[in-house]
Amino acid sequence: MEKRILLYLLICWSLASNLEKSMAAKTRHYNFEVGYIYWSPDCEERMMIGINGRFPGPTIRAKAGDTIVVKLKNSLPTEGVVIHWHGIKQLGTPWADGTASISQCAINPDETFVYRFQVDKAGTYFYHGHYGMQRAAGLYGSLIVDAPDGEEPFRYDAEHSLLLSDWWHESVQAQTLGLSSIPFRWVGEPQTILINGRGQYNCSLAHFTGETSLCKITNSQCAPVVLRVLPNKTYRLRIASTTSLSSLNLAIGNHKMTVVEADGNYVKPVIVDDIDIYSGESYSVLITTDQNTSSNYWLSIGIRGRLPKTQPALAIINYHPNSLSKLPSSKPPVTPQWNEYSHSKAFTYKIVAMDGTPMPPAKSNRQIALLNTQNKIDGYIKWSINNISLAVPPTPYLGSMKYGLKNVFSAEKPPENFSEDYDVMRPPINPNSKKGSGVYKLEFNSTIDFILQNTNTLSENVSEIHPWHLHGHNFWVLGYGDGKFKKSDVAEFNLKNPPLKNTVVLFPYGWTAIRFVTNNPGVWPFHCHIEPHLHMGMGIVLAEGVEFVSKIPNEALACGITGQKLRN
Amino acid sequence: MEKRILLYLLICWSLASNLEKSMAAKTRHYNFEVGYIYWSPDCEERMMIGINGRFPGPTIRAKAGDTIVVKLKNSLPTEGVVIHWHGIKQLGTPWADGTASISQCAINPDETFVYRFQVDKAGTYFYHGHYGMQRAAGLYGSLIVDAPDGEEPFRYDAEHSLLLSDWWHESVQAQTLGLSSIPFRWVGEPQTILINGRGQYNCSLAHFTGETSLCKITNSQCAPVVLRVLPNKTYRLRIASTTSLSSLNLAIGNHKMTVVEADGNYVKPVIVDDIDIYSGESYSVLITTDQNTSSNYWLSIGIRGRLPKTQPALAIINYHPNSLSKLPSSKPPVTPQWNEYSHSKAFTYKIVAMDGTPMPPAKSNRQIALLNTQNKIDGYIKWSINNISLAVPPTPYLGSMKYGLKNVFSAEKPPENFSEDYDVMRPPINPNSKKGSGVYKLEFNSTIDFILQNTNTLSENVSEIHPWHLHGHNFWVLGYGDGKFKKSDVAEFNLKNPPLKNTVVLFPYGWTAIRFVTNNPGVWPFHCHIEPHLHMGMGIVLAEGVEFVSKIPNEALACGITGQKLRN
Repeated sequence: MEKRILLYLLICWSLASNLEKSMAAKTRHYNFEVGYIYWSPDCEERMMIGINGRFPGPTIRAKAGDTIVVKLKNSLPTEGVVIHWHGIKQLGTPWADGTASISQCAINPDETFVYRFQVDKAGTYFYHGHYGMQRAAGLYGSLIVDAPDGEEPFRYDAEHSLLLSDWWHESVQAQTLGLSSIPFRWVGEPQTILINGRGQYNCSLAHFTGETSLCKITNSQCAPVVLRVLPNKTYRLRIASTTSLSSLNLAIGNHKMTVVEADGNYVKPVIVDDIDIYSGESYSVLITTDQNTSSNYWLSIGIRGRLPKTQPALAIINYHPNSLSKLPSSKPPVTPQWNEYSHSKAFTYKIVAMDGTPMPPAKSNRQIALLNTQNKIDGYIKWSINNISLAVPPTPYLGSMKYGLKNVFSAEKPPENFSEDYDVMRPPINPNSKKGSGVYKLEFNSTIDFILQNTNTLSENVSEIHPWHLHGHNFWVLGYGDGKFKKSDVAEFNLKNPPLKNTVVLFPYGWTAIRFVTNNPGVWPFHCHIEPHLHMGMGIVLAEGVEFVSKIPNEALACGITGQKLRN
Repeated sequence: MEKRILLYLLICWSLASNLEKSMAAKTRHYNFEVGYIYWSPDCEERMMIGINGRFPGPTIRAKAGDTIVVKLKNSLPTEGVVIHWHGIKQLGTPWADGTASISQCAINPDETFVYRFQVDKAGTYFYHGHYGMQRAAGLYGSLIVDAPDGEEPFRYDAEHSLLLSDWWHESVQAQTLGLSSIPFRWVGEPQTILINGRGQYNCSLAHFTGETSLCKITNSQCAPVVLRVLPNKTYRLRIASTTSLSSLNLAIGNHKMTVVEADGNYVKPVIVDDIDIYSGESYSVLITTDQNTSSNYWLSIGIRGRLPKTQPALAIINYHPNSLSKLPSSKPPVTPQWNEYSHSKAFTYKIVAMDGTPMPPAKSNRQIALLNTQNKIDGYIKWSINNISLAVPPTPYLGSMKYGLKNVFSAEKPPENFSEDYDVMRPPINPNSKKGSGVYKLEFNSTIDFILQNTNTLSENVSEIHPWHLHGHNFWVLGYGDGKFKKSDVAEFNLKNPPLKNTVVLFPYGWTAIRFVTNNPGVWPFHCHIEPHLHMGMGIVLAEGVEFVSKIPNEALACGITGQKLRN
């Protein structure tokens, strides 16, 4: 009991401390109406999910300590909807995390749900749908939290934001159906990479073949992105990726970049020619506009990790006083070959924490290994973790755990390890897996290590990239390695300056180790951020300190068994 | 209070009488799993909503007095679903009527709802989605109720069923969005008319140009429908239309038809060359296979009421022992010109009740006129009734009325009439309308007349067909007329042998009068059965005897304000 009292005190202190901050903080109100719209994100018109009639959704901008209130009205005709605030911890408000079946019931058509949460930490974030594959339908936008005045540990004169995504011409309904069909139907590579929701299908090629004019684009919905800069200034570029599938690389002609932030955490400044960014990640880089001012420059975004059939996306760095439409004199930078993994690893390994970043506990209380495999269940292709493919129940975990309801999800404890003789370099010998909805119950305020272990897929000589995203937390990235994780690898963990992240890449045939402290009462998914992979079961559900969760708003509990049992 | 006690007794007697019947009756169990499927209903593959992996849904077949139990699992990824059992009165089970926002909450993804209801009256029925435009996505099937042995008032040797529908290649999501866009985007005429879910796009033309072979169809999903018959027998054809838009005409080469049933009610047998059938209607016709047995014969289905851009649908009447694929020696019958309304009216006016059909009360207690207009609201095109375009609330009426919840729907009493000087022959002078959710509250066990009045649409010289469908009831069709209804028309009402129907056509520029008794406690929509018209607001909501509704199952109340207030 003593421990429990201590925990209560801790939470009270944390809330009080937030309250203190919030004396100066603002509450920022937004009205979001989610509905289908016609839009031409790459100059080809399709149906998308928009917010307030536009795509992408409005940018939310706040200061650390502010409270965000989003009144979300669902105007989709027959679909539910939720929005996840990616990278926001939701300390004290786990029901506002915006994950259907986990933190809340999907909001029914014509109904309104109010998301209210504090943004306690400066950084580059975004928000997106977290139900079915609605993110891939266009349900996303930027969420940027400024540091308190004078508290940013680097200097810059101005900033630009780049929210990156990928886009298919096939409807999300058809994409989704294809994933759960026999035979499996894969939508293929994206038609277009979008920057701030804008791309040019069948048109960016012109840039590369040395044509001297941009495509004729009269539709502002797909106009090329132009970043206006003044000479001899320092710019912060906030780059976030909400791609459904694609891993990306970004490079700027003639300009080096200094990486200073990753997923809302400051990192030790590192100068690079290009950056890799995986779905779910965000970075801030600084660039100095010290190049020949008579020219504009290209910013290129290419695809990593999959044989690209998609043209790189381009934006223009427009030096004042050049014309916006003046084509750069040099060709767009060519991003690395898709399968040059050594390049990717070199970049990823370079990202370490800025001095002064909180250090991880020296030891973990529990180590959980997560084997990432591609499997089959009744002939359907699935992804599994320790041979369980996540199938979330219709009643959200948070409410059912808080109120101790039975039979909502599997009571079976999910496995914490896998067979020692599993050959990660070969397709699974027995590809059969099973669906599951069990929860990893974690002791509150304990230190957990996850070892993500990649494997060969169902096809010979294929292992895919998986960017894993943890809700409700930042974690320390303790290390990466090739092949199978060995116990002795623990000795090599970076406990000196491991970067804090909320999303981390798992390289093909490799492993990634993370550590975090279970200090945020709630139920939190940890999953591959590739939308079709999650939809095919690639994730797990964690619960910690659910007994400390305060009263969940009724509106988050309206469905399923919580809906039946918990009213008034 | 005396009246109330009498009503209770009436209901108890009715239930007891049903119970007696049900001693001999069966309970028939069905499991329906609703989900997206790939299907090729007209030989072009698209996504559809299927049941148990197939399209159309399974045929439900029962005997009058049986109880049907359908366990419906929603396996759509993000959409709710309901199913309406079209033509079934749902006496004592108004929550099983399957209308989202009216009788129940939509069933959430991964959840199961059990429909349990009695089919008390023999007839040709069907079922279909009643949420958004899911019917048009393929969510429908046949529901056939046989008369008790020996109680059918006509003789036949065997029967065939024809469930008719129309089909578009554009997704229902896109069709729906187009209806609520500025500018309005109309999907256009259907690509294909389907018979039992099968049609041949870009192929039926071959039949008409005198080609000597059918298209090569190897896919059973779109194989032409063949009705096998033996010579010199009498066949009952059960014909039902669940089209989204199209009014149809059906004719059979060399064979006359005797109409014997309409919407589950026996009619005075009438011999015709072709029948008109509107969305929501069903007919049974008898044919005698007394023609030259060396040939097969065509059955043709053409479009009425709209300039058709869709090939007629064809089926083959296959006389034994001819080959199934033997082409008829004569050309398919040509259905009447689309705008030959005199032909349609002549057919419709001929349908009267069989002798012995219950007669309507001689007078009504209340007459409500319903002006059908096309309007604009904030620039969006809508349909309105007495200048109100129906916009149903997220909380279903049935539960909120039963439990007296406030602020669920508009408390405003909807108008019972319209301006006497409204010119039905011209576009509206003021096209502006407003949305509404008010309810027509009808005294229990009273006699109500509705006068449906058609008008000119927003375009000069256009008035459209509207087949109006009433839930929970059969009604007597007292009369039809051209132009504006006059008080003196009441004197011409057919009180001698008015047909009982659940769906009735409103002809362009005309009026239709119906009468019914409010003897079924519940909340019932009365609406145009054209899917886009209903979606654009063309309907009203009636309530009667809601105080006599017994306990509504919790599962029907899980959403909205009932969800918040009514649990345990």
